[in-house]
Amino acid sequence: MSTTIPSDPKKLIEKMRAGDPASLARLISRIEYRNHETKVLVELLYPYTGNAQIWGITGPPGAGKSTAVDCMITHLRAQNKKVAVVAVDPSSPFSGGAILGDRIRMQQHTSDHSVFIRSLGTRGRHGGLSHSTKEVVLALDAAKFDVILVETAGVGQTELDILKLAQTVIVVLVPESGDSIQVMKAGLMEIADVFAVNKSDRPEADKLVRELTQMVGLNPHDEHSWMIPVCKTEAVRDVGMIELIENVQKHQDYLSKSGKRDEKTKTFLKEEMIDILTEELKNSIQFLFTTDGGKAILDQLVNKEIAPYEAAKILSGNR
Amino acid sequence: MSTTIPSDPKKLIEKMRAGDPASLARLISRIEYRNHETKVLVELLYPYTGNAQIWGITGPPGAGKSTAVDCMITHLRAQNKKVAVVAVDPSSPFSGGAILGDRIRMQQHTSDHSVFIRSLGTRGRHGGLSHSTKEVVLALDAAKFDVILVETAGVGQTELDILKLAQTVIVVLVPESGDSIQVMKAGLMEIADVFAVNKSDRPEADKLVRELTQMVGLNPHDEHSWMIPVCKTEAVRDVGMIELIENVQKHQDYLSKSGKRDEKTKTFLKEEMIDILTEELKNSIQFLFTTDGGKAILDQLVNKEIAPYEAAKILSGNR
Repeated sequence: MSTTIPSDPKKLIEKMRAGDPASLARLISRIEYRNHETKVLVELLYPYTGNAQIWGITGPPGAGKSTAVDCMITHLRAQNKKVAVVAVDPSSPFSGGAILGDRIRMQQHTSDHSVFIRSLGTRGRHGGLSHSTKEVVLALDAAKFDVILVETAGVGQTELDILKLAQTVIVVLVPESGDSIQVMKAGLMEIADVFAVNKSDRPEADKLVRELTQMVGLNPHDEHSWMIPVCKTEAVRDVGMIELIENVQKHQDYLSKSGKRDEKTKTFLKEEMIDILTEELKNSIQFLFTTDGGKAILDQLVNKEIAPYEAAKILSGNR
Repeated sequence: MSTTIPSDPKKLIEKMRAGDPASLARLISRIEYRNHETKVLVELLYPYTGNAQIWGITGPPGAGKSTAVDCMITHLRAQNKKVAVVAVDPSSPFSGGAILGDRIRMQQHTSDHSVFIRSLGTRGRHGGLSHSTKEVVLALDAAKFDVILVETAGVGQTELDILKLAQTVIVVLVPESGDSIQVMKAGLMEIADVFAVNKSDRPEADKLVRELTQMVGLNPHDEHSWMIPVCKTEAVRDVGMIELIENVQKHQDYLSKSGKRDEKTKTFLKEEMIDILTEELKNSIQFLFTTDGGKAILDQLVNKEIAPYEAAKILSGNR
């Protein structure tokens, strides 16, 4: 294989699909630019997608998500699976260096070409973080990764929205993150497919496991429902991680057999369509304000001669 | 004044503007429902707005924002100003009880009818957190509050977007939140109008003050520019808080005299218009997927017979 990286999108994708890590890295950088080319890349990648398993991992800061991911990579590699990690850092301007520090731990895998790790930490522009993540996942899927792990600290709505692209969501909790009532109130029952109670050597761990298990049982269910398993893990000592992965695998099998995988894909694609169309319309709305008519309405609004929804209605008519 | 709360929107707003706290609370609850009535309320409130000073306060968790707000309320009340606080909690499902605990501290003001405190902590739906915040601020402005303090932990893009509605943004830092280089990298120079280095009794405080002051000086400026002041505060002991408030007041005067206040209002209203129009279009796009044509395109997309942007184009044509 030649060592040059093709600039033509089709050739770049071809080389990426043949397993060239440099082409994959370049493609992802080009996706992150978010310019007129993004569309072209999405259209070219899309036919090659739909084969990867996408696992989401979330939990409070300090729950040990990165350590768990690190450990999962090792086990998945032992199964000879190609693994990619997309780590989405919360877009806080105040976040310290701890998150980046975690990433460095994963470096042990960097010499392995069947492992790809990318951190998306920059704040969103032109559609933002959540959009780039989706497209990076498309690229990794097309690049024939078997498992794509999307890791995000569950801080902020944008970060949680990202989890919608995962087929299986693992919620990592620690005894300190509170009791099951908080979990319920936080709506985590709705997003979790598998619970991991990490740092399970701590005294309160068994209590949390018990509570979560009870809570899962209280959920309305029949013989066709997925019962969210509650796994005890100690990622740092590689305890319970194989069982966790087995449970994720069971959930993936459940999705395929029940037809829920297709349902999930459909819902996700529908939302994706709504996002694309909204984004395009937003651009055309922004253009309105460069016209004399748009400027005049804005002036009227500033002077309180009209009210916001009335102004919107007039602008709508001008489109 | 009668003790019943009117249900008619016009009468409710009238009574709220006459200073009835129960009517204000009811109105805000109705805004938070986010239904067909929201528009009506916004249109009725809008003509009465534009008089309040809106101050934004942000900073990392633990910087002492709530204590600072608490202290500012006391000083502003001493100036006989009506003060409202909208505290926007990050929409994390993992956030613990600490934030709520802070709120309770503010209870000392609850018997004072010239102080109104509302915490918007629920996760967004139907347009979300950021939208409700704007409309709650409109209501408080119409209710004749002199100063509206919008407090948000700067975690997540949504939370930061909220600050756009403030005329003056106070960024509260503590020595532990890092050095000035991090502040610059985080883009805080772009959002801050006033810096407060809180907990300034700590050893590293002077260093941070010095660095921030230098950094502000390096910003390109001329005699018409606003030079971001760096205030040393110890909110918990009420040290430096009067100076902080004076600096905010100077910034407000600067905005009025320089014409920048109107500019800010215009930019904000433009973005507001874009949001309203986008939201309405989003609803009409969602409707597309209930039609036979929309469903057929979604099926083709799932089956990879077409790609996302192509599908979006066809759907666009169907509108």
